[in-house]
Amino acid sequence: MEQLPKTQTIALREKLIGPSCQLFFRKDPLKIVRAKDQYMYDERGDAYLDCINNVAHVGHSNPSVVKAGCDQMSLLNTNNRFLHDEIVICAQKILSTLPDNLEVCFFVNSGSEANDLALRLAQIHTGNKDIIALEHAYHGHLTSLIDISHYKFNLPGGVGQKEHVHVAPCPDSYRGKYQDTQYSKDELGYLYAEEVRQICENVKNKDQGVCAFIAESFLSCGGQVIPPKNYFEEVYQHVRNAGGLCIADEVQVGFGRIGRHWWAFQHYDIKPDIVTMGKPMGNGHPVACLVTTREIADSFFNTGVEYFNTYGGNPVSCAIANAVFDTIERENLREKALVVGEYLLDSCQMLAKKHKCIGDVRGCGLFVGLDLVEDATSRKPNKKCAQYVVQRMREEHILVSADGPECNVIKFKPPMVFTKENADEVVLTLDRILKEVRHKEQLDAKIKSLQSQQAPVTVEAHTSKDHRPRRTIFEQTIKSI
Amino acid sequence: MEQLPKTQTIALREKLIGPSCQLFFRKDPLKIVRAKDQYMYDERGDAYLDCINNVAHVGHSNPSVVKAGCDQMSLLNTNNRFLHDEIVICAQKILSTLPDNLEVCFFVNSGSEANDLALRLAQIHTGNKDIIALEHAYHGHLTSLIDISHYKFNLPGGVGQKEHVHVAPCPDSYRGKYQDTQYSKDELGYLYAEEVRQICENVKNKDQGVCAFIAESFLSCGGQVIPPKNYFEEVYQHVRNAGGLCIADEVQVGFGRIGRHWWAFQHYDIKPDIVTMGKPMGNGHPVACLVTTREIADSFFNTGVEYFNTYGGNPVSCAIANAVFDTIERENLREKALVVGEYLLDSCQMLAKKHKCIGDVRGCGLFVGLDLVEDATSRKPNKKCAQYVVQRMREEHILVSADGPECNVIKFKPPMVFTKENADEVVLTLDRILKEVRHKEQLDAKIKSLQSQQAPVTVEAHTSKDHRPRRTIFEQTIKSI
Repeated sequence: MEQLPKTQTIALREKLIGPSCQLFFRKDPLKIVRAKDQYMYDERGDAYLDCINNVAHVGHSNPSVVKAGCDQMSLLNTNNRFLHDEIVICAQKILSTLPDNLEVCFFVNSGSEANDLALRLAQIHTGNKDIIALEHAYHGHLTSLIDISHYKFNLPGGVGQKEHVHVAPCPDSYRGKYQDTQYSKDELGYLYAEEVRQICENVKNKDQGVCAFIAESFLSCGGQVIPPKNYFEEVYQHVRNAGGLCIADEVQVGFGRIGRHWWAFQHYDIKPDIVTMGKPMGNGHPVACLVTTREIADSFFNTGVEYFNTYGGNPVSCAIANAVFDTIERENLREKALVVGEYLLDSCQMLAKKHKCIGDVRGCGLFVGLDLVEDATSRKPNKKCAQYVVQRMREEHILVSADGPECNVIKFKPPMVFTKENADEVVLTLDRILKEVRHKEQLDAKIKSLQSQQAPVTVEAHTSKDHRPRRTIFEQTIKSI
Repeated sequence: MEQLPKTQTIALREKLIGPSCQLFFRKDPLKIVRAKDQYMYDERGDAYLDCINNVAHVGHSNPSVVKAGCDQMSLLNTNNRFLHDEIVICAQKILSTLPDNLEVCFFVNSGSEANDLALRLAQIHTGNKDIIALEHAYHGHLTSLIDISHYKFNLPGGVGQKEHVHVAPCPDSYRGKYQDTQYSKDELGYLYAEEVRQICENVKNKDQGVCAFIAESFLSCGGQVIPPKNYFEEVYQHVRNAGGLCIADEVQVGFGRIGRHWWAFQHYDIKPDIVTMGKPMGNGHPVACLVTTREIADSFFNTGVEYFNTYGGNPVSCAIANAVFDTIERENLREKALVVGEYLLDSCQMLAKKHKCIGDVRGCGLFVGLDLVEDATSRKPNKKCAQYVVQRMREEHILVSADGPECNVIKFKPPMVFTKENADEVVLTLDRILKEVRHKEQLDAKIKSLQSQQAPVTVEAHTSKDHRPRRTIFEQTIKSI
């Protein structure tokens, strides 16, 4: 529970923790002291509806996950150089959800560790170095991953593009290089895949082979993008023709979030060579996994270099992952994600008809994005509106975030226990906030005009905190739109 | 507890887990189902005295650590984009043990993640690329760390030495490039440091600056090596003159293991620019940390690139680390490590007088190594003897390991609750096993001679498992040597 006054927590945080580790709502950060299911509670006991935490997958403080962790912690927590049942049971569960070619697991502590190992395996297996990744993609915080994450290396202060890294356009049909205004869905898939083929060709022309193509199956930081149906199938063929492996990064989108399937790559007719998984796997506990083929695992083994990961696959991490897995099954969370996700998507699409600033609504299961624009024709990204929405939603005690290359896509990736009632609350509040946007624009114009007269002006009306209990909003007629 | 018969666990492990993840005692691995303090228990309830697990620092299944983890898990586990007290309290505790120049913490999930970040910070702060590391050093399993870990990249199937990596000789006074038979301790420190100066010179001659020097303060995988007193002081000067940062890797040796100090670098008169810590920090839970100066943290911040580590510094990890910290203090574990470590060291030195195969006994606190040799004059490493000792100790239900470039150094790095009685048991058993060694050599010679006559021979006497309860050994007169 709370041990320090919030002001002191803030002061210590600023003084003692690396400033590159940024807080949500930096100017007025949230202090969260407990959380349950899809709600987080601040130090005053105020509840926030959590639409951000894709890690708290089966709900914050899920009792069966907590119990599994506590029971195992009291018994044993050691490294995987000793035999233990939880690790092999966890591997069995994971492999039961995957295509037959994926047979071997490596347990690690984070999605980043899994992706780093994926690149290492690909280099060892193919003997090649060149990596193809997507524009705006993010694959983790480690050196090897920052190098391939356009989302990071391409920032003004970023490390820039290394020679062995190739960036293919993001297969975003709405605001990518090729758009749905000019091409059919199938054409878009082919065109975006063709870009990857061209990169493979260029690599081959330098008498080199491709090492790997890595992509999130649905692109999260890239702006909640769902690639066209035929895209990955085409890409995988091109990459394999060039000698490369295909890596599906399921760290953000896996474990049933998309509803219909356990893994987002199963939305496509493909069989990756390596799948990496993380975030939701431990419901907050640091555990992650890489799954690959026997052949690739053997290539690694044949180097004679042992792989030892101190905490990877320890009994507590695996007991927790097993409990997460069982909870998804027992509580039918994939089916729920599908039903509630469809409902949220439909409601957002209705909202889009009312508010022209919603340019695109896309999603699958509880992976949903709203692409905010200045106008529907130009599709010019409206970052300002997105920032306003995120801030105002927080004031209404709903946590959402904005992402994508232009920071204009409102992301929904809530815990899987999110309900239709939660979806109603979100959409209703969003409706109200988007109505304010026009008023806000008018007000801003007024402030500017006043400021030009040198008079100091403070406008509190739309930026002050609203501490009405969440329920008062909830109680409004949810069918009003 | 046990859910599958051991044979099935083995079969599933072989089938489902990457073969590069190796088990201890591969031919007959241990299945451990619970552990308490310094003891691990197999599926039959047999106890093993644990001299291997430097991670289970305050004792396996330590009740206050387990309680802290369980309490926090039931309340909240989320990322550090929200304010939380545990992370700032943890930072306060860590910083209170360090020199004043080290002011800023970054929380991560593993020692590997900490070391990767250390290299990244050093590159950003200095603008340089060249890394100096030590011969036989190991800094983690990530791509960037395998590249600088001579222990890994130099293996027959390893990735080889990259251009930006420079390897300085291990400052091992017993079997390194310069030895105590020819030089005084001070001379050894200067000579080994001079090797680093020469590397700095070579880097400067290529019109480049040094990025960083990274070393474990005491070398663990390198063979339990304690560098000469003046070594690091000299090295740090050379590295800083060449524009580089000095990174102290305390992942294996930190958190009071050496007794007198919290961190092994404090054995020397130095102030590192970056300190990394991991393994013991969470007593098995995946948590690790990097501490650096304000200036270096600011250089990273000034790139404008955010650092986000999903689980790094989460409330559960920090609550656990805080409980580990408090347990070390409350139970005076540093003082105990010092007293018991001295006692173990003394006993081993007495043993060395009896057994000529013990070439060197070295250590500090509960970080102890026995360098086994063929004879005292040649100091030729005796890997075979070390392997025999490890195997036989396991049969006597004592877990030790062998490491070092020649795999001939018996390592002791037990949980810090290890007692004098445990030390007696270890030394007594070791005494008995070393007596067997000569007998074994005679037997081996006999087998060879028999085999040359083409007769199939099975010798079970010294390799069969000994399931006497640990106590029967214990009860022998411990003062027999």
